[in-house]
Amino acid sequence: MNFLKGIAASSGIAMAKAYRLVEPVLSFEKKVIEDANVEIERLHTALTTSKTELETIREKAKVGLGEEEAAIFDAHLLVLSDPELITQIEDKIKTEKVNAEQALKEVADMFVSMFEQMDNDYMKERAADIRDVTKRVLSHLLGVQIVNPSMISEEAIIVAEDLTPSDTAQLNREFVKGFTTNIGGRTSHSAIMARSMEIPAVVGTKTATVDIQHGDFIIVDGLKGEVYVNPTLELITQYEQEQIRFEEQKAEWAKLLNEKTVSVDGHHVELAANIGTPNDLAGVINNGGEGIGLYRTEFLYMGRNELPSEEEQFESYKTVLEGMNGKPVVVRTLDIGGDKELPYLDLPKEMNPFLGFRAIRLCLEEQDIFRTQLRALLRASSYGNLKIMFPMIANLDEFRAAKTILEEEKQKLVSEGADVSDFIELGIMVEIPSTAIMADQFAKEVDFFSIGTNDLIQYTMAADRMNERVSYLYQPYSPAILRLVKMVIDAAHKEDKWAGMCGEMAGDEIAIPLLLGLGLDEFSMSATSILKARSQILRLSKNEMEELAEKALQMSTTSEVVEAVKALSDKVMSI
Amino acid sequence: MNFLKGIAASSGIAMAKAYRLVEPVLSFEKKVIEDANVEIERLHTALTTSKTELETIREKAKVGLGEEEAAIFDAHLLVLSDPELITQIEDKIKTEKVNAEQALKEVADMFVSMFEQMDNDYMKERAADIRDVTKRVLSHLLGVQIVNPSMISEEAIIVAEDLTPSDTAQLNREFVKGFTTNIGGRTSHSAIMARSMEIPAVVGTKTATVDIQHGDFIIVDGLKGEVYVNPTLELITQYEQEQIRFEEQKAEWAKLLNEKTVSVDGHHVELAANIGTPNDLAGVINNGGEGIGLYRTEFLYMGRNELPSEEEQFESYKTVLEGMNGKPVVVRTLDIGGDKELPYLDLPKEMNPFLGFRAIRLCLEEQDIFRTQLRALLRASSYGNLKIMFPMIANLDEFRAAKTILEEEKQKLVSEGADVSDFIELGIMVEIPSTAIMADQFAKEVDFFSIGTNDLIQYTMAADRMNERVSYLYQPYSPAILRLVKMVIDAAHKEDKWAGMCGEMAGDEIAIPLLLGLGLDEFSMSATSILKARSQILRLSKNEMEELAEKALQMSTTSEVVEAVKALSDKVMSI
Repeated sequence: MNFLKGIAASSGIAMAKAYRLVEPVLSFEKKVIEDANVEIERLHTALTTSKTELETIREKAKVGLGEEEAAIFDAHLLVLSDPELITQIEDKIKTEKVNAEQALKEVADMFVSMFEQMDNDYMKERAADIRDVTKRVLSHLLGVQIVNPSMISEEAIIVAEDLTPSDTAQLNREFVKGFTTNIGGRTSHSAIMARSMEIPAVVGTKTATVDIQHGDFIIVDGLKGEVYVNPTLELITQYEQEQIRFEEQKAEWAKLLNEKTVSVDGHHVELAANIGTPNDLAGVINNGGEGIGLYRTEFLYMGRNELPSEEEQFESYKTVLEGMNGKPVVVRTLDIGGDKELPYLDLPKEMNPFLGFRAIRLCLEEQDIFRTQLRALLRASSYGNLKIMFPMIANLDEFRAAKTILEEEKQKLVSEGADVSDFIELGIMVEIPSTAIMADQFAKEVDFFSIGTNDLIQYTMAADRMNERVSYLYQPYSPAILRLVKMVIDAAHKEDKWAGMCGEMAGDEIAIPLLLGLGLDEFSMSATSILKARSQILRLSKNEMEELAEKALQMSTTSEVVEAVKALSDKVMSI
Repeated sequence: MNFLKGIAASSGIAMAKAYRLVEPVLSFEKKVIEDANVEIERLHTALTTSKTELETIREKAKVGLGEEEAAIFDAHLLVLSDPELITQIEDKIKTEKVNAEQALKEVADMFVSMFEQMDNDYMKERAADIRDVTKRVLSHLLGVQIVNPSMISEEAIIVAEDLTPSDTAQLNREFVKGFTTNIGGRTSHSAIMARSMEIPAVVGTKTATVDIQHGDFIIVDGLKGEVYVNPTLELITQYEQEQIRFEEQKAEWAKLLNEKTVSVDGHHVELAANIGTPNDLAGVINNGGEGIGLYRTEFLYMGRNELPSEEEQFESYKTVLEGMNGKPVVVRTLDIGGDKELPYLDLPKEMNPFLGFRAIRLCLEEQDIFRTQLRALLRASSYGNLKIMFPMIANLDEFRAAKTILEEEKQKLVSEGADVSDFIELGIMVEIPSTAIMADQFAKEVDFFSIGTNDLIQYTMAADRMNERVSYLYQPYSPAILRLVKMVIDAAHKEDKWAGMCGEMAGDEIAIPLLLGLGLDEFSMSATSILKARSQILRLSKNEMEELAEKALQMSTTSEVVEAVKALSDKVMSI
């Protein structure tokens, strides 16, 4: 039995066979061949096998994931039947007497580089298709197994270096019982994905892909951040009981679905959800969300070749507003740039993208994009309780400029006869230190704050949270962060405004007592964390938490704060 | 007459002919040739011309810059006489019937890539030599003029895209009267270099290399940040008077060389200098520095193939401490990583180097490097008034860990019988927002603070100051920054410690009134800014500046602060 320690990224316990989602090694040497016909024969066999395989994958994907996800494989099949490509490979084998692998690679590389140089997004995508297909054909030439996550047809736990959005898009959610990855932290894509899929995950194990073989039976303990490889029968039995306890716990939480979130001494807070698309609405409602504290609109702009139209955006916003049936919906305007790129915007590469041209900085310069989004939002406003917030605001000049643009668009729409709500609250993300420090000045002009802790922490500590060598400095419970949070909340309350939080910290069981004590009004988190958080807050006293927070603000290190919270009694620690 | 607006990076006025330091275009086409002998003849002519040229440059460099700088040209001359290289080029011309340019390039590329692949720093440098020499020979084959900054033999103003450290190393300071560049800001290398050379500079003009031709007569106004191309006689006369006024002004300032820096109401502050090497000492003394507020030790580690030994470091530190003759010398321990790389440390590429593994983060992990530096510093401590500070401290854990290591090395040295001062003050750079916010806790454990505004501002505003698209957010006078500065100074004073500043802001004439008002104890700046700053502070009232600062802290935007300072009266504005 082997044991791995990682970061508990999504709670629960999974037990199943390991499915390694690892890129195979496709290396080979250039060879001079004797008989060109043998090589051409090998090529055609590999092409045919690839084609059959792709057709199967395509069918599976269509059933499991839908027509849209399956379409990518149509494009791959087209490449496989492209006569120009195949003829050129055959010619190369014949004239240059090279092996099929070499001929395939040279011809494919040429097409890829030709397509990539074209200033045309469609052609650039074709380059990616050719690269993918070449890999597949090469794997058959070399007799190497290529992984097809969409082919998973029995219960499995994915083992990978990391999971990209396109990996997860291809996963059949019916069979995937858990994740474990080498890299990443609680805020990495794979962690967020696992929580949204409600499956256990342990990330950042460093060596999962080395220590776990395809087909090993593994236990992923997403509560403790532990992974067991080929565990003993005793441990399996133990974990089966653990799993039952966890299910019972979840059943307990489920009873709180329609409860208000009120501390033992009667203080009410709002528990809201972070969402990415209208598809996430069901999860919010099934998990007792009292509102949406963060609607990330980036997904509307991603995985496509052009900007979404005003109409398309309007439909999405309207769906969410109507779906929430009058409950508050905080929509964050486009937060693109940094690590989130849009190929069709052609943004320049930056030395430090996290400190770069992104979010509101980009929107204030590329005003067409911004105005289209604001118009769509304003038009949707009459369908529910819309609140708009701007991301990455660093100073009041930016907020004022963004507000002016919003008002201009509102005037235009009103004069065009559109129905625009007069009760749209306008707020900002507080995710840049300067803005937290200046919160008293901002509070006079905004309607609310939403603290974005993921970025706020990394800027305040000057540490990239995605960089493994410094991620130890990503310390949500640091007294420095708590002090900034306090500045924001106090500033809001002084002006009778409200303060929320939509970073990972808002749903964290160590942070919740502190945030309650600091007076946070709204906690926005992964929908699947809401019931657990509600259960925790129902057992806390606001007064006691105020004392705790007051002490924490005067502590000198993160570990002192964590100890103080843990010592407060096990009623704080819900699991 | 053409006019360019840029950033005033180094004060003064320069008038001279433009010297364009721009890479020439060395493009050519591969040709099939008839007569190989003609091409070989062309090749040899170009080689000979290059050799004569290099010998002249080498002599000039030796006289103007010293033997060490000239040595690079010896290496280039060796390449030119390498029989293996030349024979291979000749062979290629003969057998493949290609033009000399093509043959030269192919052979050189082969050698370059061979040397670069070797895991040997010496060989890698040889690759760079071959690349440089190839460019030179190619320029003669093509009849294109190559620039040789070390050949400048009449008064000139350098016009360039940007200036690298190796460009500036080759400049003959006798003839270079000023710089103007397309890119960069007040804190870029070229700007710092110009201030250290005490020559006027305007950076960030965007189009200097486009709008200015080689030989154009230009005026660089480093006070206003303006450049005039082929100015009218009237303007020249006007600027000659301006130049006289500036010289008179400097003469006025020079009288303050041995004065104390005291406000009109009797408050004393210390004006110190930032230095990079012991060579900068003369500048500190000639400009009336009352100490060294920042000795950047990185230069000891740069431009070499291995770490500097303890002995080597000891000698440098001792030289500086003795040179300052008992005046305070604040040495910053190694601040490497981020944008400052050391090839021999082989640090991994990072997505956001400014938020990465650098400075104290690296030193706490690579303890051998750190301990060697600390031992050298401790041994040098008995030769003057040494203060040590750690860069990039983000929390108290890091400071405590670094302090423990320092104390361990001190114990070892003492038990070895070394002479170590018992009065070394130990402080930290405050350049990360969390540290400013936690200054009250730090103040209980450190002896002093030195605020590093260049980094502090970029982290607080989440804006990379080197990134042109967001550099507008690099706002030293932002109320958010002033509030952080106040937190640090107040925290220090509460514990009877002192607070200094060693960023660009400390020497800035808009910032100085505010910093004086906030109670800053030590201002460390480019040596050449000291006398001007002293002249300014001598005319300011601490009490009035306290009122100004108090108001600025309650303002909502940077522009309000700047207006308030400017409105305060022209006695604040010294020039």
